[in-house]
Amino acid sequence: MAATKIDASPYQHATADSASKKFRLDKVDPGDKPFSTGDKVEDRALVDTLAVELDTLQNLLYADRRFKLLVVLQGTDTSGKDGTLRGVFGRMSALGVKTIGWKAPSEQERARDYLWRIHQHVPAAGEIMVFNRSHYEDVLVPPVNGWITKAQTKQRYAHINDFERMLTETGTVVCKFMLHISKDEQRARLQERLDDPAKRWKFAADDLTARKQWDDYQAAYADLVSATGTSWAPWTVVPADSKTHRNLMIATLLKQKLESMDLGYPPDDPALKDLKVT
Amino acid sequence: MAATKIDASPYQHATADSASKKFRLDKVDPGDKPFSTGDKVEDRALVDTLAVELDTLQNLLYADRRFKLLVVLQGTDTSGKDGTLRGVFGRMSALGVKTIGWKAPSEQERARDYLWRIHQHVPAAGEIMVFNRSHYEDVLVPPVNGWITKAQTKQRYAHINDFERMLTETGTVVCKFMLHISKDEQRARLQERLDDPAKRWKFAADDLTARKQWDDYQAAYADLVSATGTSWAPWTVVPADSKTHRNLMIATLLKQKLESMDLGYPPDDPALKDLKVT
Repeated sequence: MAATKIDASPYQHATADSASKKFRLDKVDPGDKPFSTGDKVEDRALVDTLAVELDTLQNLLYADRRFKLLVVLQGTDTSGKDGTLRGVFGRMSALGVKTIGWKAPSEQERARDYLWRIHQHVPAAGEIMVFNRSHYEDVLVPPVNGWITKAQTKQRYAHINDFERMLTETGTVVCKFMLHISKDEQRARLQERLDDPAKRWKFAADDLTARKQWDDYQAAYADLVSATGTSWAPWTVVPADSKTHRNLMIATLLKQKLESMDLGYPPDDPALKDLKVT
Repeated sequence: MAATKIDASPYQHATADSASKKFRLDKVDPGDKPFSTGDKVEDRALVDTLAVELDTLQNLLYADRRFKLLVVLQGTDTSGKDGTLRGVFGRMSALGVKTIGWKAPSEQERARDYLWRIHQHVPAAGEIMVFNRSHYEDVLVPPVNGWITKAQTKQRYAHINDFERMLTETGTVVCKFMLHISKDEQRARLQERLDDPAKRWKFAADDLTARKQWDDYQAAYADLVSATGTSWAPWTVVPADSKTHRNLMIATLLKQKLESMDLGYPPDDPALKDLKVT
């Protein structure tokens, strides 16, 4: 079980304050497997064990009630957001873990600020909420397509940092994962979707539009990780060409995070002491 | 119609950045009538005229759709929040102006950050939303009762300033009015509630608890006006011992604000040109 000793810091960014500390996304190889034992069978067994341990920790988070946990999953099409939900959170009770997949905003949503719909779905005390895509789409799609200016994008980074600071200062732990795959891996996965009748429904023509803007999206991701990787809500870039490694890394880091929260059951109610159910 | 030439600046605070610029609430006489013509009958007629003009401006805001208007009414019990709603906003269509009275948070609401429920009710494009009490209760009741520390109160001021900046930067105009009455005027109004069977239902025993904490609440109001009167969302302290003056001042300032927004109807659809309905 070497997984808990691994240094994740080369994959993390938590210093949005310093403009000089730009995160170099191009220096992270999507094929890296820092959390792997070197043996795929062993890695898979580890993920299964971790998923069960995470279920136990989720129960403890729910009983403890001091914290909320918000997990953000971002990444290009086919980067494995759905697979992470199944592989890492699949063992947890639907009562304690919730998930929402963010699509393009509705007319009602566009009539308010872009954080309006997001704020409505932040986790309650004791809950885990997993965002499949998130408010970060609002600093990816609009700047890449030229719908907002650089100044407006910067303004949004500041809004998001302020929003996440308020969340953390009111008891929400925010964990943000960017699932990082290579352009080649995406090609293979998109082709697989097209070729498999059971997966074809997931294919949208839009996926190819975004693929044509690959370099622009990579640059926008590098910018947002640099600008919104804060001490209170750091980013972790997850090398995700290997699905098993992706799950292993995320599950390991979440377990470490939950363990660091020193969760406990509430004190026994004295009225229950020596009580016998008859 | 001298009302539009009056200098409201002695009653406004818009410089939260500077700790030295503390707002002196005790220097504002609740009996002042800076917006009065000196004639009560004329003042009342002015309020009626303004209410009709505000209805027209609300229609224009709705057609224009570039802005949202959030009006915050704060003030101690009997300070006239309900009366302002009737007197200033009563002529507007319920389609374009909405109002919400904030009570103590529910269990569901307490399970999230204190801005969660507030954010859900911000106005949509073209709408006016009037808050009868607001998120400012969260920096009044808890500090006065010692439920949160001074450091936590400061942290909340920062959250609120960040939140309101995000709102203004995404098209919401935020107008905050503190209805300022004297302790004597409150005594008279509370007694009136008790003595009048048609008003007695509005009386809550809690009102007397808060009255006993009068000085603490005045200090908390002075602190919050100083800390959250920002350039993007300034506070106006409204001398409110006179109900007519209160409505006159708020209606005048709102009219000025709406007129400054340069609202207009959207351009005609060319397809409608020379169209005859047959």
